[in-house]
This record gives sequence, C-alpha cells and structure tokens, in this order.
Amino acid sequence: MKKKWSGRFKKQLSNSFIRYTMSIKTDRRLALIDIICNIAHCNMLRKIGIITIKEKYKVIRILENIFKRVKEKKLKWRKELEDIHLNIERKVVNKSKKLGFKIRTARSRNDLSTTELRIWLKNKTKDIFEILKKLIKTIIKLSIKSKNIVIPSLTHFQLAQPIMLSHYWLCYKNMFFRDLLRFKNSYIFTDQLPLGSGAVSGTSFKIDRKYLSKKLRFKKISSNSIDGVSDRDYVVDFCFSCSMCILHISRLCEEIVIFSSKLIDFISIDDRYCSGSSMMPQKKNPDIFEVMRSKTGIIISGLISIMIIMKGLPLAYNKDYQEDKRICFNTSDEIYISIKMLNKVITKLKFRKKKLKKASKMDFTIATDLAEYLTKKGMSYRKSHELVSTLVNKFEKKGSFKKINKKELNKVTSNKYVLKFIRKYNIYNIVNKKTSIGGTSIKQIKSEIKRSIREIKSIKI
Amino acid sequence: MKKKWSGRFKKQLSNSFIRYTMSIKTDRRLALIDIICNIAHCNMLRKIGIITIKEKYKVIRILENIFKRVKEKKLKWRKELEDIHLNIERKVVNKSKKLGFKIRTARSRNDLSTTELRIWLKNKTKDIFEILKKLIKTIIKLSIKSKNIVIPSLTHFQLAQPIMLSHYWLCYKNMFFRDLLRFKNSYIFTDQLPLGSGAVSGTSFKIDRKYLSKKLRFKKISSNSIDGVSDRDYVVDFCFSCSMCILHISRLCEEIVIFSSKLIDFISIDDRYCSGSSMMPQKKNPDIFEVMRSKTGIIISGLISIMIIMKGLPLAYNKDYQEDKRICFNTSDEIYISIKMLNKVITKLKFRKKKLKKASKMDFTIATDLAEYLTKKGMSYRKSHELVSTLVNKFEKKGSFKKINKKELNKVTSNKYVLKFIRKYNIYNIVNKKTSIGGTSIKQIKSEIKRSIREIKSIKI
Amino acid sequence: MKKKWSGRFKKQLSNSFIRYTMSIKTDRRLALIDIICNIAHCNMLRKIGIITIKEKYKVIRILENIFKRVKEKKLKWRKELEDIHLNIERKVVNKSKKLGFKIRTARSRNDLSTTELRIWLKNKTKDIFEILKKLIKTIIKLSIKSKNIVIPSLTHFQLAQPIMLSHYWLCYKNMFFRDLLRFKNSYIFTDQLPLGSGAVSGTSFKIDRKYLSKKLRFKKISSNSIDGVSDRDYVVDFCFSCSMCILHISRLCEEIVIFSSKLIDFISIDDRYCSGSSMMPQKKNPDIFEVMRSKTGIIISGLISIMIIMKGLPLAYNKDYQEDKRICFNTSDEIYISIKMLNKVITKLKFRKKKLKKASKMDFTIATDLAEYLTKKGMSYRKSHELVSTLVNKFEKKGSFKKINKKELNKVTSNKYVLKFIRKYNIYNIVNKKTSIGGTSIKQIKSEIKRSIREIKSIKI
Amino acid sequence: MKKKWSGRFKKQLSNSFIRYTMSIKTDRRLALIDIICNIAHCNMLRKIGIITIKEKYKVIRILENIFKRVKEKKLKWRKELEDIHLNIERKVVNKSKKLGFKIRTARSRNDLSTTELRIWLKNKTKDIFEILKKLIKTIIKLSIKSKNIVIPSLTHFQLAQPIMLSHYWLCYKNMFFRDLLRFKNSYIFTDQLPLGSGAVSGTSFKIDRKYLSKKLRFKKISSNSIDGVSDRDYVVDFCFSCSMCILHISRLCEEIVIFSSKLIDFISIDDRYCSGSSMMPQKKNPDIFEVMRSKTGIIISGLISIMIIMKGLPLAYNKDYQEDKRICFNTSDEIYISIKMLNKVITKLKFRKKKLKKASKMDFTIATDLAEYLTKKGMSYRKSHELVSTLVNKFEKKGSFKKINKKELNKVTSNKYVLKFIRKYNIYNIVNKKTSIGGTSIKQIKSEIKRSIREIKSIKI
Repeated sequence: MKKKWSGRFKKQLSNSFIRYTMSIKTDRRLALIDIICNIAHCNMLRKIGIITIKEKYKVIRILENIFKRVKEKKLKWRKELEDIHLNIERKVVNKSKKLGFKIRTARSRNDLSTTELRIWLKNKTKDIFEILKKLIKTIIKLSIKSKNIVIPSLTHFQLAQPIMLSHYWLCYKNMFFRDLLRFKNSYIFTDQLPLGSGAVSGTSFKIDRKYLSKKLRFKKISSNSIDGVSDRDYVVDFCFSCSMCILHISRLCEEIVIFSSKLIDFISIDDRYCSGSSMMPQKKNPDIFEVMRSKTGIIISGLISIMIIMKGLPLAYNKDYQEDKRICFNTSDEIYISIKMLNKVITKLKFRKKKLKKASKMDFTIATDLAEYLTKKGMSYRKSHELVSTLVNKFEKKGSFKKINKKELNKVTSNKYVLKFIRKYNIYNIVNKKTSIGGTSIKQIKSEIKRSIREIKSIKI
Repeated sequence: MKKKWSGRFKKQLSNSFIRYTMSIKTDRRLALIDIICNIAHCNMLRKIGIITIKEKYKVIRILENIFKRVKEKKLKWRKELEDIHLNIERKVVNKSKKLGFKIRTARSRNDLSTTELRIWLKNKTKDIFEILKKLIKTIIKLSIKSKNIVIPSLTHFQLAQPIMLSHYWLCYKNMFFRDLLRFKNSYIFTDQLPLGSGAVSGTSFKIDRKYLSKKLRFKKISSNSIDGVSDRDYVVDFCFSCSMCILHISRLCEEIVIFSSKLIDFISIDDRYCSGSSMMPQKKNPDIFEVMRSKTGIIISGLISIMIIMKGLPLAYNKDYQEDKRICFNTSDEIYISIKMLNKVITKLKFRKKKLKKASKMDFTIATDLAEYLTKKGMSYRKSHELVSTLVNKFEKKGSFKKINKKELNKVTSNKYVLKFIRKYNIYNIVNKKTSIGGTSIKQIKSEIKRSIREIKSIKI
Repeated sequence: MKKKWSGRFKKQLSNSFIRYTMSIKTDRRLALIDIICNIAHCNMLRKIGIITIKEKYKVIRILENIFKRVKEKKLKWRKELEDIHLNIERKVVNKSKKLGFKIRTARSRNDLSTTELRIWLKNKTKDIFEILKKLIKTIIKLSIKSKNIVIPSLTHFQLAQPIMLSHYWLCYKNMFFRDLLRFKNSYIFTDQLPLGSGAVSGTSFKIDRKYLSKKLRFKKISSNSIDGVSDRDYVVDFCFSCSMCILHISRLCEEIVIFSSKLIDFISIDDRYCSGSSMMPQKKNPDIFEVMRSKTGIIISGLISIMIIMKGLPLAYNKDYQEDKRICFNTSDEIYISIKMLNKVITKLKFRKKKLKKASKMDFTIATDLAEYLTKKGMSYRKSHELVSTLVNKFEKKGSFKKINKKELNKVTSNKYVLKFIRKYNIYNIVNKKTSIGGTSIKQIKSEIKRSIREIKSIKI
Repeated sequence: MKKKWSGRFKKQLSNSFIRYTMSIKTDRRLALIDIICNIAHCNMLRKIGIITIKEKYKVIRILENIFKRVKEKKLKWRKELEDIHLNIERKVVNKSKKLGFKIRTARSRNDLSTTELRIWLKNKTKDIFEILKKLIKTIIKLSIKSKNIVIPSLTHFQLAQPIMLSHYWLCYKNMFFRDLLRFKNSYIFTDQLPLGSGAVSGTSFKIDRKYLSKKLRFKKISSNSIDGVSDRDYVVDFCFSCSMCILHISRLCEEIVIFSSKLIDFISIDDRYCSGSSMMPQKKNPDIFEVMRSKTGIIISGLISIMIIMKGLPLAYNKDYQEDKRICFNTSDEIYISIKMLNKVITKLKFRKKKLKKASKMDFTIATDLAEYLTKKGMSYRKSHELVSTLVNKFEKKGSFKKINKKELNKVTSNKYVLKFIRKYNIYNIVNKKTSIGGTSIKQIKSEIKRSIREIKSIKI
C-alpha cells in the first residue's frame, strides 16, 4: 500500500509490516476521544488564527457527524491506516480534503495519542473509583449487619482469638479504602495535558495550551515537551493501583474459597454464583472467587509488562509505547468487572453463625485473655503466658478451658484466678474487653463504622 | 438461564456470573481439537463396550459434520454454555439427544480441557520451532554472505575489537539455537496425555488410555490422575521458552535501532519496514524493531502471570487455571509473528561496510593485539598492557596507533616491537589471528558455519 | 534448644528449624528502633498503671544502656532467639528478670514488628526523599548551566529536532519530581501506628494508643487491629516508589552509556568514574552507569517479590511476612546509593558542545520548522509536510537543506518560501520559536527553571 | 586509590565509585574456583609455550598455597581491588611479581568470570539435584507407607472424590521429578566452557581450549567468542528451574498450612518444627511452611530480575551482568535449604487417619461412582449425572447417601440400582475401581511406585 507520509520514502510499505505494527485493533476504543480532541484542537487553531471561523464550523460539523456515526457503530476502521488518529483524519479528508489537510497543524501523533490515553484513563479511573466506593459502602453495610456474629480470627491460619464478623469486614474496608486513595493519587498523575508538546520540542505556532487544557478538562499542563511525549508514568501508576486492589481481592477470595469448603463450612455461597462439575454430580464450586483470584496474575503482569517496556528506553517517544494502550485497556477492564462482581456476590454470602461461634471458642482461643487477666491480678505477662501455655499443653485434648475441672486444674496450678476466670468468662465479654482504638469490641466497631461512613462520603476524585 | 448441571442447584445462574466466568470467547480456538478429542474418546468408548458400533459411527458422523462447519466458520458459540466443551456437546445433543448424553461418559472437563490445551500447544510449539529454524537458517545465510565485512565489537557499548560481521551473526545463531533446544524441552513436557484422569481420581470405567494416547499422538501418558488434572507446568515451560527467545530478540532489536540511527549509521533499514512521522517530515523510524522489543514486556509478563496464578494453589484443579489458555494463545501468537517478522526484515538490512570498517579501526581497537604481540616478544602481559594503555593515554587525540610517528613514539617507549607492529598490522590479519575455537578468524568462522548447518539440519522436535 | 514459649510444647526446637526461620540476621538492623519502641511502650504501661513509676525508670535505664551498647556495636545477637525483639527482651531479662518479664504485656510481636518496620521505613523514606531532592537540585543547576547548548532530540532513537540541553535536563527533573511525590505518598501510607493491635484483636488492657503515637511520632493510628497486623501495603507502596525512580534512572543511564560511546561521543565521563579492562588496554568503560542500570532488575524484583508473597494470603499475620524486612532493606539501600552516586557523577559529565551542535543540524532535523513555516505562509500542513518530505527524499545524501542550491531546488518546487527559509534560518531561532508552554525556547526554559526552583523548595515530606 | 589498569587514565578512581561498583563482597564465594581456573590456565599456558615448565610449577605452588589459605579462611579481600580475580592475581603478584604479571595472558575477566560462575553453578546444580532426588525418594517412601490411608481429594478446594494418601504423594513426586528434569536441562546449558573467548573476539595466542575444557571438566566448548562472554542464558535457565520447584513447594506448603489448622485438623506438625506466639499462649504455628511458601516470591523475583537486566542489552559483555552472581547465589541458597528442610519435615507430619477417612466420605464424594454405576447399568451419563445430582440436592442435609432410607429414595427415583449401590459400596472398593493408568486404585499405585523407584534410580546429571 501507499505510505501515509509518502514524500520521504522510496518504496511501498510491506503488508506484513502494517499488520505487525498497526494499533487500530486496540486504539479504536479511543475513537470518540480522538474526535473530541480534534474538535478542541480545531477550536484552538481558530483562536490563534490558523483556520478561519467558517473552516472551524465546517470541520467541527464534520467531526460531530463522525462522532455520531462512531456511536452508532456505523464506521469501519482500516488497518492500513495504522491507528485511530489517521483513520479519523482520513474520514475528515473524505468529507473535505482542504480541511482534513489542515487539522494536523501544530501537533503530532506523539502528543495526541498520549493525551487521548490520559483522557480515557481519567474516565476509567473515575469509574473504578466509583465502583470501588460502592464496594466499600457494601462492606460497611455488611459490617453493620454482622455486629453480633462472633467468628474466630486466624494468624498463621491457626485459630487465634474470637473477634466480631463486623471487625473482619472493617479490615477489608480499610484495605479497599487505601486502594481508593491510590486511585486518587494515580488520577492526579494522569490529569496533565501533554497536547501541545508536538513531536518532542513543542511547535513554532503560537498555540494556546491553557485554552486546550480548559476545553479538555485537564487540571495541569505538562511543563516540558520532551516529558510530555515520553512520560508513561501515569500508566504504571494506574496499573499499580489496580495491582494493589486485586491483591486485596485475592486475599478475600482465598478466604471465601477455603471457608466455603465443606471441610470448614463457615460460609455458604449463593447457588446463583456457583457452578457444577461435568463429571461429579455432587459438586458446587466457588468458581467466581477462583476466577477473581486468578486475575491477580493477569493484572500484576500488566504492571510488570509496562515496567519492562520502559526499562532502559532512551528519550523521547519510542514505538515501544504502543503497548501502553493494550495494557491499560486489559487491566482496567479486569479490575472494574472484578470489583463489580465482588460487590454483588459478597452480599449473597451466608455466614453460618453457629459454626463460627463454635469455632471461635475452640482450641483455647481465649488463652490470651486468661493470661492478661492473670497479669491484671499481679503476675508478670511472661509468667502468666507460661502458666497458660502449660495448661494448654496439659489439657490439649479437652480443647477448651471450660472442660477442665477444679481437681485437674489444681494439679497444675494453685492460682485461684485461673479457676475464677474459667468459670465466669463468656465469649462476648472477651470480645468486648478489646476497647482501645482498633479493638474488636462492639463499642470500637460502632465508632469505626461511623468514622468510615463519614470518610467514604467525603472522598472524591 | 438454566444450570448446565441442573440437578444439584436450587437457583438459576446469575447472568453476570456467566459473563464473568465463561471462557468460550477464548477457548473457541480449541473447537477443532475438542472435536478430535471427542472422536478419539468415542472410538475408545466403543472399544471398551460403552457404546455400540452403530452408535460410534453415528456420533462420529455428527462430529465430523460439526468439524466441517466449524472450519467453514458457520457455527455460533453460546456464551451461556460457558466453554467450548459444552458448546460442542450441545451441538451433538441437538443432532442426537441419546448420543449427546453418552459422550461425556468416563471423562471430565478437568482432564479434557488440559488435554486439548496440550494438543494445541504441541502444534503451536512445532510451528514456532519451524519458524525459529527458518530464522536460524537465515542468520546462517547472512553469516555466509558477510564473511568479508569487518565491524567493531562492543563491550560496555564501547569500541572493543574488530570482528567479522559473520562472527556477530553466528553469536545470534547460538542464542536462537539454544531457544530451539528450549522449545524442544518444553515440547517434551507438553507431550503427555492427561485424558483419562477423570475429575481427579480416574474413573471406574475400564478405559484404555494407551489407545487414546495413540489416537491423539501423545508419547507419554500422565501417570497420576491428580497430577493429570492439576499440572500446568507445561504452560509455564512454554512461556519460559518464549520469554528467552524474545529476550534474545530484544537485544538484536536494540542494536538495530541504535545502529540504524543517523548518529551511528551502521545499518540502513529497508524503506518498506520503516514508518514516518505525522509532524516531522524527515523522519524514518525503525518501528518494527521497537514494536518487537516491546513484546519482551508482553511475553515475559505472560510467564509471570501463570507463575503468580500457580503460587500457593492447593491441588487439584482450580478454576484459576482458566486463564492458562489466554496466556498460551497471546504468548504464542506474539512470539510466532515476531520471529516471522524478524526473519523477514533482517534480510533487508543494509550494512554500511565502509563506516563499519572505519569504526572497527577507531579508538585503538587493536590495542589488545599490540599488547599480545609484545607479550609474544617477551614482555609479561601486565607490562605490555600497561605500556599500550600508556600509549593510548598519551596519544588519545590521534585515535589510532597508525597516526603516531616514530619520534613521538620514542618519547614514550623505546621498545622496537611497538613500531614494528604499528607499521605492519592491518585489520584483516588482526581478525584472522583469532584462530582458536570460537575466535573471529575466517577459518574458525567457516568451520563454525559448517557445524551450524549440520546442527540445524539434524535438530527435530 | 529450649523453646521460647516453652509451656505449650512437648519437644525441643529443631536446630535446622531455627536456622531456617530465624530473622535476626536481617532484623538486627531494627535494634535501636526496637529499644525506642520498648521505651515508649514502658512509658505507656506506666501511664495506664501496669508498672510502677520506679519500675518504669529502672527499665528505661536498662534499655538506654542497651541502646548505648548497640550503638557502640558491643552487643552480640543470638540466632536461637529468633529475632531482634526476643534478643532485646532477653538483654532486659538478664539485667532484671522481673522487669523483663513484664515489658511484653499488652502487645505482641505481630504489632511490634510492623511498627518497627514502619518507623525504619519512615526514616529511610525521608533520607531517600532528601537525596532525591538533592539530585533534582543538581539537575536544575545543570539545566541553568547548559542554557546555551544545542543538542539533537531523538524519537525512535532517530534524530528528531534541535533542543536545548537545558530542556533535556528539565525533562529528567520532571521525572524525578514525580518520584518525589510518590515517595511522599508512600510515606503517608507508612505513617500509621499499628502498635496496640495486639496479636490480631487488640488487648483487654486499657492501653493508650494516642499516647504511643505521639511518643513514636506517628500521624495516624491504625483503626482496625486485624488490619494493623496484616497490612503490608506500605512495603509495596515503598517498593513501587523505588521502582519508578530506578526506571527513570535506567533511562538516563542508558543514554549516557550510549552517548559516551566513541561511536557517538556526545558525552565524556570523568576518568574517576570509569574502569578499564584486564585484557584490552585502550578501554574506558562507563561501569557506573551500567551497574546503576542493572539495579532496575534488582529493585523491581523486590516489588514483585512482596506482591507474590501477599497474593492469596489469608488474614491476618502470616509468617510469610518475615521477608518484608529483607526486601525493604535491600531495596532502600540500592535506591539510596544509586541516587547518591547519580547525583555525584552527572555533575562530572562533559558534554561535547561542538559535536552536539553539529548533530542537531544533521539529517534535516529542521524539516518540521520548514513545514510549519510553509503552513504559516498558507499551505495546509499535510501539503507542506509532503513537500518537505519530498525534498528530504530527493536530497537525502546532502544531509542538510543548506546544501541545496537554488537550481536544484527549483527542479522540485517553485515555492519561494522554501528557499527563503533555507537561507535565513539558524539553529538558535528554530529552537527559540518553540515558545508555548513546555517548548524548548530559552524563554520557556527560564520560566520553567524558576518554577522548578520554587517547587523543589516548597515540597516536604 | 590507584587505577588497576593505570596507564589509560589520567585520574585516580573515586572511592565512592569503587564501593558502588566492586563485587568482591559477592564474588569472594568464587575464590577457590578462581584459583582452580588459574591453575588450569597456567597449565595451558605452559602447554602452548607461553610460560616455562619452571614458571608453571612455581606459579601453581603459589596458587595452591593461596587455595589452602582461602580454605582456612586466613585471607582478607581488598575491596579496592574490585573483584575476586584481581584479588587473587594480587596475591600471586605479592609472591612473584614476574609470574603474577604473566598469568593474565590470553584471557580477560569477561571470559574468566563467566567460566567461574558456570563451574560454581554446575556444582550447585548438582547439589540441588541430589537433595531433590532425596526429597523424591522420601516422598516415594511416604507413598509406600501410606498405601492404606484414604483421604478426600479436592477440586476448587471442595470435596471431590476419595483417594489414597499414597496417590496424593505420588502427585507431588511427579511434580518434583519434572523439576529434576529441568535442573538436568539447565545443567546442560551451563556445561559449556567460555574460557578462551578473551574479551570478546578470542585471542591471538594459540590457546588450547580443548585442553582447558578437559581440565575444568566441561562437556562442551562455547563456539563463538561473543556469545561466550555475553551469554547469561544459563543463569536464567537455572533460576527458572528453581522457580518451578519453589512453585511446587508453595502448593504443598499451602496445603499443609491449611490442613494443619485446627479448623480442618488433617495433619499435625511435629512440635520441633512449630513456633509459639509471644502474646497468645495457646498458639502452635506452622512457621516453617509459611517461610518456605514465602520463598516463592524471593526465588521467582530472582528470575525476573535477571530477565529485566538482560532485556534490550546490546552485545557483548556489559557491566550489568555483575548482578548475575548475587542472583545465582541467593536463589540457589534459598532453594537448596528449602528442599532440604522440606525433606526433613514432611517425614514428621502426622496424618489423622480417622478424620481423613471420615472427610473422604462426607458430602457425597462418591456421587460420581454412583452415576458411573448407573451408566454401567444402562443409563446415559448425562442422565445418571442428573439423577444423582437431584438426589444430592434433595438430601443435601443428610450429607451421605448411606443415610437415605428406601422410602425417602423411592419418592425421588424408582431406579433399583441406586439403592443397590448405596447399600453395598464401601470407600475402599470405590477407590480400587480406578484401575486405569494413573488411577487411585492400590493396584495402580503399586505399579506407579515401582516405576518411580526405577525412574529415580536411573536419573543422573
């Protein structure tokens, strides 16, 4: 086929070259944004006198028409035109050769394509931000709903101490709230206009970048033309925010998968979100949480991918950047739908209260409280720790202090407080003793829920 | 919609669940292979008496018909049927309910899907193996063609010593030959039949796995049913082979990009494989090599992705594996087309012999030879190294020993061999002195070329 | 050896187990911080009445003494005591059994160790922040110093347009300034006190976490005890900031390595920062920039490492976290020293002005300006782009428009403005025409330098 | 300090430069190998006449003496001498200036350092190979010992089908056996002598590389000098083998951690390999398996690290390679000790047979067998699958078919075979019906154990 920038070259382009290097299959997603940028650019070209008022109105009419047809999915893209920018330009040329030949003035694909990706990413980050906010609100609601459910906490996946289910949810709330802040941070890095940087050094036309940034709603303007075209940090920042979020999701999914196994049976997943087996008739599988967990690999690898691409790349624009779009699109699609699904399915989880309560008492989970009680009665913590652990060792098979009778106990210790504690404690007081900031007592949980509601209401991108 | 395995469940499946977890968009690529596996399976079912001879012929006829229609792209896949296996099964059911209900006997999607991926990957690995062999042959040809071209070698990207362009190509030949061996290794890991492992423990039917492996052309049969369904090592092995290969490609591309810059101008890329700039009329960009280099990020991230997915996954099958196919498909497409393009474009590179020869003499690149010469004449190597480096230091601005006259030289050293060497050496003898195995002399190169031709001829998957 | 928490266990610990799981070899770096935390904790224990005033003063005296001896490197750590916390505790016990047995009250290693890592990381982030600020100031100075040096910019590593060396430096300034912001962000995530979270659910003692946070200078207090002990996001955030920074460094190093090669010879590196070759007497290698570039692999792999560790990890604390410290220590050491070295060596680079100026005129780098000029005179940009690229094609061998004479020109175009432009342009006006925001004109550069000085002065952690 | 290759340079080296770029802290581990290479090299230098017989004996005596003193740890390394090669050379010079000045003849650090790393890695790979073989033998033994223990298999972490514990172990045996093959493959890539490649192009001395390869026990000789010094594939290959192995380990560890939790309590870990909690007296934590699992992050990140370093690196030697040693050393230490520990601790696991057997019958795990039985009696598999899953649905709360009485059953199905099956099946026949290759029947397991013993005996590096 003919070269796009034909004057410079002596030969036709190779077809396999075109197929290998063209990006239209990916960047077609930027079509509407490309048109919006073109309109803003033409307005600016008018403002600085490069095109006439009449030309401006005409070209904008053409562009708006193309916009409409893109929305209606009536347009076809030609891969030999390489990318979305040239495809749109050609559509304009088809309507008016003269105008189509002018719109490219005072800009380059180098600054245009990164501008468009930034706009796309800003929108997408906002969408993710909103769906993540929803998820957090859902978790807060779950936390409110589950204030009276006692569950065991685990460390090293071993039974640790009884906590409230509310408290557990608030932990995930915190994790996702940090992700919200990360998306906010990466949004700020994205919100900077490169258009006007030209190919690398700016342009000799007296362009008005402030006007452009206002029209295209950017908060800042890139202050160095080389950086304008070569900066892809915002892509990495975005991928990083997504990676952290999916890491958190992977932990929750792991827990749901394990806890919903009949082996533990703490959680039951709604039938609508489970799948069966083609061979084993009894199976009910937590597919959705496994798929979600597997996205961790996919999303993190997007981050690594763009980092590997950037490593050791000389300034300024290099074609290697072309992959930036595919990485952004894949990563953001995956994270968005995953958060959305998670938000849906966690409300359908059924927690088996009895089993959870029973487990929260198993295996001496209140040992710490007994030790702390003894310390309050005067024993040093190391001593009381030792005494209690000796009791656990001796009566391991009983599984609970409650089952130790006075006689048995006296053989090991004469400390009267041990028996006193064993007789009177119940799982609710134990939980409610943890009243300092961040503790699992109902009082703390209530105040943390209040704070969280305020916090989530006030955060904005 | 209705559940696929409806008996077990009390509720309909959620639509969003289906969209999120279905794999038909990806695994449709396995359609033909799925049918082939079904045919082999039905043959086996007949052999062990599960279906009658009549049933066998009927179901195979149905399957062959579906095969034909898939080839003609006349079939549509239904995403609510989740994956390719159920889609094909449904097509059979549509033709014969009775038979469609039988073909699933004595197998599971767990063993079926990994069998199909292995078949696909074996084929693809062979394709990659062949195209890589082609590339190596091309490189050998280039090596033969460029036996009389002297170029500078670089270490630390600084001029090092004169070598032959042939020698340079033979280095890349070695790198790619190792990749060939890696693909061969990963093929062997892939060439093992899991079908017959059932869901995880085998099956109570007396299936004939040897027959299946013969029909489906597998060399080995997986010897443990749990491993059969949970092993995805072969995917990682494959991704690793691809990663190594693209790493090698990235190095070559980096060199071509830099050496084709007008700043150095050692290589000129054919116009047909270059692109222009929308803003800068003079530009001729080595896009193809940059795009190829960027694939390093994409392909390595596939490897990392599957590794992250596998990390800490309990046995046996987990839905997380679903991503294996997407990773395989993407990775193999990218590596295949990249090798193919590379094979095409490197034959079109034009090396600027004069510039290369000039550069190979610049900046005292023969200093080592002078030092070695002096050592042959009796000086210890550390002494001769020191003397020569002092000369370089003193006459740095001259850039070449040849430009030092006798008088100047005598001020620094009275060693007569220095002058002798400077007077008589020429770049070709210097190169041709490197006659031990692996050296850059023409003699060695010729023998290495011969060996390489034999080697590439005899290697097979 | 004897178990640390002996009561619970029936057997002695295996020695190989200790060697494999102990962390004292790594976390000894936290010794001083551990003591500081102990002092704060003891003060708090007094405040809430767990220990007496006399006990407090005694234990603090003991701890201060240990502090002094650690500083003097007089203490030995015992690996059978597993980690730094138990080592320090043992030192206290050795001085006063009674007090040593009490200090562990109302806390766990789970909350203690993450608190100490946060303190360490806050300090280190500040150090990195400061050295990075220094580097940015150095770059601003280099930018001021190099305002009159014209260099070629590159895109696709091909000659693009002339720019000012100042402009180039300001691009790196921007990149590193974004890194500064990232470190600031990750610092904020780190600046949150987990101490008081206990093992996972808080504690039944009425501890005063606000007091602790004041004493240990944390801005925020973790609001959920599970999150308090299981959150390692701050480690990942930190590693990410470092990864971005080293990525930027890798690009600069790549350029310096290539540009300092005799093949291009734009830059000369000070002898003090180069190394020689043991075989080739003439070599002068840019080792330092290569080593720095290689750190990209090391630092990014730290990020990936912690991400892989976190993937799918159930709440709350898991021993897997133990690696967090090693990753933090390695990563921060590498990034700190690399920034420090970079700050040192870039001031010693010598730019070869003549060569740079010459190269900035080579290969029609002003083609864009000619095309823009023609557009200002009435031609559409696509037309002028085509005309100019045709000229480049026709006169490729001349390498510059200046060398085309009138007669030759007239054969290709009769446009009088072409000749006019060719005759009058000089490289400085061309650069100085780029006056819009971010352009390479001296005017813009000056204003950007001013802005940068303000910006760097006002940023604080 | 003074430059090592002083003639070339005009200035002293910067101290900070030395600290930043020296590798002696890492490569001191190669000291003995460096001496061995020196001895082989001197023997070769004699053979080709560069040194006299007397010189040879003298220098070898000196080298052997240094060897002895290194072994006795009596030598100190000087970091200003940069690396181990120069440190050893200096030791020789200190004994005999004349000879020390000669040994460097006909070689470079470029070929020397990669030769030494290859030797080191070959040894280490052999060690890992042997310890891994041991682990596999241990697993085979465990498999033999546990032939009569029924356990439930899981898919999607849900109860799937009953299997034998032997069968489970044999799955891991397969995984680790593949790793053995990988180490064998990576060993082959490592077993190639680069010494004699010189700095990049060979040498003008008539060196005898065959002699060297015999002396240093390499199977192959690198056939291209550029490749000889620039190839680090073997490092990546090695890191990949380690990564696969640790991935497998991570899966086993994950299972042990989960299964040893009191929530499931399938496995009990020996007290000697568990640790306690400083706060919670009852805790017994599976630290060792968590630490092992966390190594996955560390080891995989080594692989990624070297890949990132190699990406886009021009030929031939670049200082970036310096990190290769650190990566190799860390990775191999971690994998070796992890395999060793694993080999130790898995023999100490106690499987709770009763619980395992009970769980293997829970939740209708024999549903598949019932369905297969019905199919054998004439029902199509899809039909029987549906019938059985309906039964599961209806009697979900009973948890087992055995608990369904005839009357209840008749309400759902009149198929007489259902009742027949329910009455007569027992868990052992069910397992023993899986008799095709790879199935979980005792017969198959026995034959697989036999095969495995043969296989492990015959594999060698």
